[in-house]
Amino acid sequence: MDISKHLNSAELDTLNKQPLYLQIALLIADKIQKQVLPSGTKLPPERELADLFAVSRTTAINAYRKLEQQGVVWTKVGSGTYVAQARDLEPLSEVPWPQLFTAYPKKPLASILRDMVSTPAPGTISLAAGMPDPALYPLETFTELFNRNIGRAAPADFGHIPTEGYNPLRRAIAAMLSEKGIPASTENILTLSGSQQGLYLLSKVLLEPGDYVVMEAPTFIGAIQVFQAAGARVLSLPCSEKLSLELLEDYLIRYRPKLLYMIPTYQNPTGRVLPEQERQDLIKLAKRHRLVIVEDDPYSDLCYGEQPPQSLKALDSYGGVVYLGTFSKILFPGLRTGYLAGPHVLINRLALEKQFIDLHSNNIAQWLVTMFLNEGRLDQHLTTVRREYKKRRDTMAKALQRLCANDIEFIVPEGGFYFWCKLKQAVTSQRLLQEAAKNRISFVPGEAFHTVPTLDKEFRLCFTTHNEAVLLEGVQRLAKTLTQITKKNKDKDNDAPPCSVWPII
Amino acid sequence: MDISKHLNSAELDTLNKQPLYLQIALLIADKIQKQVLPSGTKLPPERELADLFAVSRTTAINAYRKLEQQGVVWTKVGSGTYVAQARDLEPLSEVPWPQLFTAYPKKPLASILRDMVSTPAPGTISLAAGMPDPALYPLETFTELFNRNIGRAAPADFGHIPTEGYNPLRRAIAAMLSEKGIPASTENILTLSGSQQGLYLLSKVLLEPGDYVVMEAPTFIGAIQVFQAAGARVLSLPCSEKLSLELLEDYLIRYRPKLLYMIPTYQNPTGRVLPEQERQDLIKLAKRHRLVIVEDDPYSDLCYGEQPPQSLKALDSYGGVVYLGTFSKILFPGLRTGYLAGPHVLINRLALEKQFIDLHSNNIAQWLVTMFLNEGRLDQHLTTVRREYKKRRDTMAKALQRLCANDIEFIVPEGGFYFWCKLKQAVTSQRLLQEAAKNRISFVPGEAFHTVPTLDKEFRLCFTTHNEAVLLEGVQRLAKTLTQITKKNKDKDNDAPPCSVWPII
Repeated sequence: MDISKHLNSAELDTLNKQPLYLQIALLIADKIQKQVLPSGTKLPPERELADLFAVSRTTAINAYRKLEQQGVVWTKVGSGTYVAQARDLEPLSEVPWPQLFTAYPKKPLASILRDMVSTPAPGTISLAAGMPDPALYPLETFTELFNRNIGRAAPADFGHIPTEGYNPLRRAIAAMLSEKGIPASTENILTLSGSQQGLYLLSKVLLEPGDYVVMEAPTFIGAIQVFQAAGARVLSLPCSEKLSLELLEDYLIRYRPKLLYMIPTYQNPTGRVLPEQERQDLIKLAKRHRLVIVEDDPYSDLCYGEQPPQSLKALDSYGGVVYLGTFSKILFPGLRTGYLAGPHVLINRLALEKQFIDLHSNNIAQWLVTMFLNEGRLDQHLTTVRREYKKRRDTMAKALQRLCANDIEFIVPEGGFYFWCKLKQAVTSQRLLQEAAKNRISFVPGEAFHTVPTLDKEFRLCFTTHNEAVLLEGVQRLAKTLTQITKKNKDKDNDAPPCSVWPII
Repeated sequence: MDISKHLNSAELDTLNKQPLYLQIALLIADKIQKQVLPSGTKLPPERELADLFAVSRTTAINAYRKLEQQGVVWTKVGSGTYVAQARDLEPLSEVPWPQLFTAYPKKPLASILRDMVSTPAPGTISLAAGMPDPALYPLETFTELFNRNIGRAAPADFGHIPTEGYNPLRRAIAAMLSEKGIPASTENILTLSGSQQGLYLLSKVLLEPGDYVVMEAPTFIGAIQVFQAAGARVLSLPCSEKLSLELLEDYLIRYRPKLLYMIPTYQNPTGRVLPEQERQDLIKLAKRHRLVIVEDDPYSDLCYGEQPPQSLKALDSYGGVVYLGTFSKILFPGLRTGYLAGPHVLINRLALEKQFIDLHSNNIAQWLVTMFLNEGRLDQHLTTVRREYKKRRDTMAKALQRLCANDIEFIVPEGGFYFWCKLKQAVTSQRLLQEAAKNRISFVPGEAFHTVPTLDKEFRLCFTTHNEAVLLEGVQRLAKTLTQITKKNKDKDNDAPPCSVWPII
């Protein structure tokens, strides 16, 4: 085999500051790992290697020595240097790792679906992930804040800080919440490495295996996963229509659940807003039963029409509502900065748990967000993203109405990220997703948001990640898929028996 | 009471971008919370409030309305505005929170000691925390890297990324480890929110209640806490002297422990380096028993003399060593960026656990560290901190020798952060700490690093946080404390019975 075509100086990165011998060693190791140079291959003599890379012979010798130390190549004295056996590359583990692992909850449906939607074919328009548009991330503002303030920053602020969070940020969040009618002071706030961490910590502190939790159905996948991983049993509260407080009360009496998890505003995935009166009735009921409510509120700042009602936490008259917020949806997810507001005794206990996990959250992000809030940049940024997302919502609503109205029903959301669609046809959303993949469009099938099997006629479209042109193209691809399926359905025997459950034997 | 002295425009922050009514409301709420304005206080009429703050009457009215909404004040029609009862400020919780919490491991000694050392009197010189000196944080380099690269950064890099970490960082870490003789490619690396998170994830994935783990004694407090919180039983391997592989083998046969946790280089707290030969013998033994070794290596880059031996991971011939690294000690702790290197199957399982906890670690820090590594800034920074810390180590060694040699023994560490000292006198390190607090000097008593009670004659001094002048002053205060204790001991009856264990009845 002609090695020289695989090994030559063109592949070296001259801007790289690493020593040349190391760059060459890494390059060869890479080719070996990718099996461009299979095991057993005789490598060029040192002098030849030096010529190939236009380096000194010492450099070539050092490169081979390095590779030999790592067991990637071996030298047969008087014969030459050879690529080692593949199994020598990473020492064949003699430790049976998987046998050492603790039990893991069976891979949930949601996770399987995530694999389907997260690795789409090239050119696919994904309306799956609930993400803000990267083009709208306020990176310029952050750069400005960084530069204007780094000079007067106290270096100690970048050392260890209390587990509860960077105090100036806790204070700024308390002030922000007070503005929203949620009375909070610094000690009521715990900053989090994303609001996901709040769910995790709450599950550690409140749930033991076998405990019941009440969740809206459908609801946020991440919350389902965390609570189920803690061994909790989920009681479903349908939320597509009016919330049934009768059913909730029945659950409360029958099961004494540990908590109710809710997204009252621009719910994920339905986009629904719990009306003011229902909020007050819910609080009354919760107060009577001293029920802990975990209110997850990532979307309420993203309203495209009238202001949503006050949060449950603002209406809390019995101290039982825990509030979760995040900057992931309104600024950008990579900040990994969320927060939890609750009674001090709870904050303290959650912090004791958090210290084991990461000591405290990232200071750079907390410092940046503090300045963003204190310099009043949030309102201005929200104005920008609200205006843009409203246009996108309207574009998608019109396109769905024009192109898909025969096949699906949907409600235009008043805020947040999502359209929740319902198929009129005799087809499941998972089947639709499979067909849609061929037309390079993806979304999340409704099944993912449920803990129990459903008829699977619903699916979620996110309208914030892409601009209007891409959204339009996406809806066109969806419409095309729906038309194709309708045609196939008509071609099929109309007398086919209804879908049945067959025993697997 | 004359309210006007508490409420006036001088206290308003004119640079603050918040609306004036809100600033006034927050100011009043703050005074109420601090009980400068006790409950029942009659507040000035709106017109008077407007005059006090030099604002319009509408602004004053809005400030009171805001406070009323929050339940902080109440208005009696025709009479005026009053501070509400204290219990109305945060709704008296009708939820018995502590009764809802899951069981928590009894507050460990380490945590009690932490309270003692973390809240010292003003003016105290703390040699307790294991922290780099904030004055040496490379914030200027980070600022330069930020500015030179933010323009060409892909915004999507600040969105969601894989749980395993920011891929360019994983790649850079793999290259860095390869240079240290640890063969690793991208899929062998998991980035962490600090290496503490690696310990937590390993405990979730490998430990079930009742499992055994072997740990050096003394060792890192955070590791003890995490493993004990997972319900593990700790087997102690004394490490102040030569490591006893005979004892380890006895443990392996007798208890089949799930893992051995070790800090082989510049150990915390002893500063000890496991010699090359002992490392090879340990690996041989571990291989024979297929023992998982968790090698924690935060300090090995901080050598002040000759290079330490290769890491256990570099010597790993059986695929059983998991390696933990961090940028907290060499760059700064607030980055919250650590990493774990191990077999791919383990990385994958740890990532499944991590996604519940925080989805992924902070992108800003990961992006910054990537550039720091790829632009070759680490070597240059390490040269600076090594030179400085070496001077501090020498200063402290000389001072201890000159001022404390009658009372303590110590070994000069060849790297890392710590002096490990042993009291020659009939006094425990906890007693010494109490006396030392009066002289405004603190450290960590040795007891904190053990899982079982010891004679408590040892303590740890960190020499990296303060400059040489402060270190000198610190040692002088320590010497003064030791002299005082010696004197007291001499004054006491020399025939006092030896320390005994008395039943508590």
